[in-house]
Amino acid sequence: MGDRERSAARIEHDVQTLAGPDYTASADAICRYAYTDVYRNTLGYFTERFRELGYEVWQDPVGTLVASNRPRGAKAFGIGSHCDSNRNGGKWDGTLGVVVALEVARLAKEQGLDLPLRVISFLEEEGSGFGQMLLGSRIMLQRVTEEDLRERIHDEDGQSFWESACAAGYEPERWQESIHELDGLVGWIETHIEQGRVLQDTGNRLGVVEAIAGYVHGDLRFAGRADHAGATPMGFRVDAAIPGAETILELERLAREIGDGVVGTAGEVETSPSLINVVPGGMRVSLDLRSVTGGHLELRDRIVAYAEERGRARDVGVTWTERQRLPETPLDRAIVEALVTGAEAAGEPFRVMPSGAAHDTMCVADRVPSAMVFVPCKDGLSHTPLEDARPEDGALAAEVVLAAIAQRLGS
Amino acid sequence: MGDRERSAARIEHDVQTLAGPDYTASADAICRYAYTDVYRNTLGYFTERFRELGYEVWQDPVGTLVASNRPRGAKAFGIGSHCDSNRNGGKWDGTLGVVVALEVARLAKEQGLDLPLRVISFLEEEGSGFGQMLLGSRIMLQRVTEEDLRERIHDEDGQSFWESACAAGYEPERWQESIHELDGLVGWIETHIEQGRVLQDTGNRLGVVEAIAGYVHGDLRFAGRADHAGATPMGFRVDAAIPGAETILELERLAREIGDGVVGTAGEVETSPSLINVVPGGMRVSLDLRSVTGGHLELRDRIVAYAEERGRARDVGVTWTERQRLPETPLDRAIVEALVTGAEAAGEPFRVMPSGAAHDTMCVADRVPSAMVFVPCKDGLSHTPLEDARPEDGALAAEVVLAAIAQRLGS
Repeated sequence: MGDRERSAARIEHDVQTLAGPDYTASADAICRYAYTDVYRNTLGYFTERFRELGYEVWQDPVGTLVASNRPRGAKAFGIGSHCDSNRNGGKWDGTLGVVVALEVARLAKEQGLDLPLRVISFLEEEGSGFGQMLLGSRIMLQRVTEEDLRERIHDEDGQSFWESACAAGYEPERWQESIHELDGLVGWIETHIEQGRVLQDTGNRLGVVEAIAGYVHGDLRFAGRADHAGATPMGFRVDAAIPGAETILELERLAREIGDGVVGTAGEVETSPSLINVVPGGMRVSLDLRSVTGGHLELRDRIVAYAEERGRARDVGVTWTERQRLPETPLDRAIVEALVTGAEAAGEPFRVMPSGAAHDTMCVADRVPSAMVFVPCKDGLSHTPLEDARPEDGALAAEVVLAAIAQRLGS
Repeated sequence: MGDRERSAARIEHDVQTLAGPDYTASADAICRYAYTDVYRNTLGYFTERFRELGYEVWQDPVGTLVASNRPRGAKAFGIGSHCDSNRNGGKWDGTLGVVVALEVARLAKEQGLDLPLRVISFLEEEGSGFGQMLLGSRIMLQRVTEEDLRERIHDEDGQSFWESACAAGYEPERWQESIHELDGLVGWIETHIEQGRVLQDTGNRLGVVEAIAGYVHGDLRFAGRADHAGATPMGFRVDAAIPGAETILELERLAREIGDGVVGTAGEVETSPSLINVVPGGMRVSLDLRSVTGGHLELRDRIVAYAEERGRARDVGVTWTERQRLPETPLDRAIVEALVTGAEAAGEPFRVMPSGAAHDTMCVADRVPSAMVFVPCKDGLSHTPLEDARPEDGALAAEVVLAAIAQRLGS
């Protein structure tokens, strides 16, 4: 059995084990949030595996797991992801990244490479327990306030994050110390399923991620006039859905025109009052705009201007409300190149690509030169029990990540 | 005080009285359904008024009110509407038509015209009590089955129409006799608020309705593929909202191109899964298509073909499901002309127009030469407590209807 086959078998064993009843609160999906028994069991599984490899294992003050074959704070290369799940999640999202990190640690040991490694499994990436995405990595990077943790962030029963962490035996009052888990890190690579269909549809087995897209989320609201569908001739209408529909079409055209991987999505579309026999008095169109180049901000400006112009032409009022904005995260050129070299050496088809989805690496990259590796997932499905990926592709990722780390550490 | 001013004052008194607490179940809206106390009080109000004029008053076997100054079944001219309300209704919808009929009876008597008149106030036009529009007139015209009445049609607590009618003291087993309330009728005119804004916006005080539109209700469903909004480049998408939006725009263009008063409305528009960060895998667009010429059937065929073609161009599946279809109702040329003559004599601006909304007259016209008169309502608002109209316009309607009846009866 070759290295990759052995890796694939170990990865499959880890992933399938963690899909078992001790590690998920649901029989139908992976359901695993911070401070639950199944989450604690999952951290326990990884703790045992790393101790077997001779690693020291600890947790930061709120429950992010860290394992290293070097003393705390010593120079090391970071790898990992998260092992909490979406509320109706699959086996691969997040978990695969920690499992691949474990496999990298195994391979390094087997191959007698004494590489300084630090594995991190971030708390609450999905936001399922406390409604806040990237919570563990945002705490580590000090992207929250103490007031957020004490008051604003709470579970669905209203118990604050702070109280929950205390009840689970953690020390949230020491949350600011979490940043030191990055001390000494000379690089970081997160492996994750792609959550898209590009690798599958282009026949690639690996993605080397060179940047994580920034995004703008918001809503365009069109305000016309609701009238009786039968009693209002076409010439007497102020139909909000007309400029709304024009904007949906223009969004696609503009995103393609701007190019550079810019994407624009009108995911939520609804009319009001939403009755078959009433001319739409209002329409709401949500916009999700992303790019790794800032092109999504150009798209935002141009689509809002277009919507306003089409509204004016129809006496329809148009307002734009931004919900959230996150800047793009360029990743480290040297690590990306090391991953490309590793992928070329592996001899399997791969693709250098952006990440359209957000990841903990967006936070880590603030402090540490970072990159990511994507593993294809079936039909792009994620955040569903139907999520599927191939252990062989995980094994390839482990091989390429190990090679890149070895190169970056100059060994 | 002139006739019209006196009529306006009486109409206003009737309408305002029937908006009082004895006649509506809600303090905030008119709320009046079959077999409720407030509905019974309303029939009682009209019964007293007609008896004061010397009319005989009775009800059909299920509770449609009839009043006449001639024996049952004798030759007469019919006038009326309905006096049940929408669930969150206004003062004018339906009620004004019965009040105008009462005013016509008063004027005829005052002016010493011994015209044979029969007033009908149909049960349950709005469908608020039993979920079925035009129920009283459909029962009269035998457009229901006994099984419908015994089993399929029920109130929101599940009590059948049949049981409800029995409990209210009616004799639903005699429902087929209701048709005889039309025996001897030589014509029928219903007065109603327009429920649109055409009269107001064109500065007319009266509408003479020459036809009631037929309609088709249905849904176009577009089936593409839901993908992650960030992780799916524009070229990898099968976005159901693109052909959906194109269809919304083409619907308007086609309705205008076909012309002849054809209207097309996409009132309900929704994406699925309807998440800001997911490319729409599905879109539903409801269609309400109407005309008095059959042009709405051409519109249906052309818009469905267009949607299918746009779907094919994008690999998006398209299905059309018809919910309901009702044919157009041409009204009686001679009565329409008599109303036009009456309106011209009244010297006020009026408009000959179609009705886009459905009315009890669609049933009556099966058996009796029929027409309708519209009274303007403020901003086209209807089925809301904001519904408003002017008693002076009601008085004008009464004058014109009386003149038309007198002409048709040759007196």
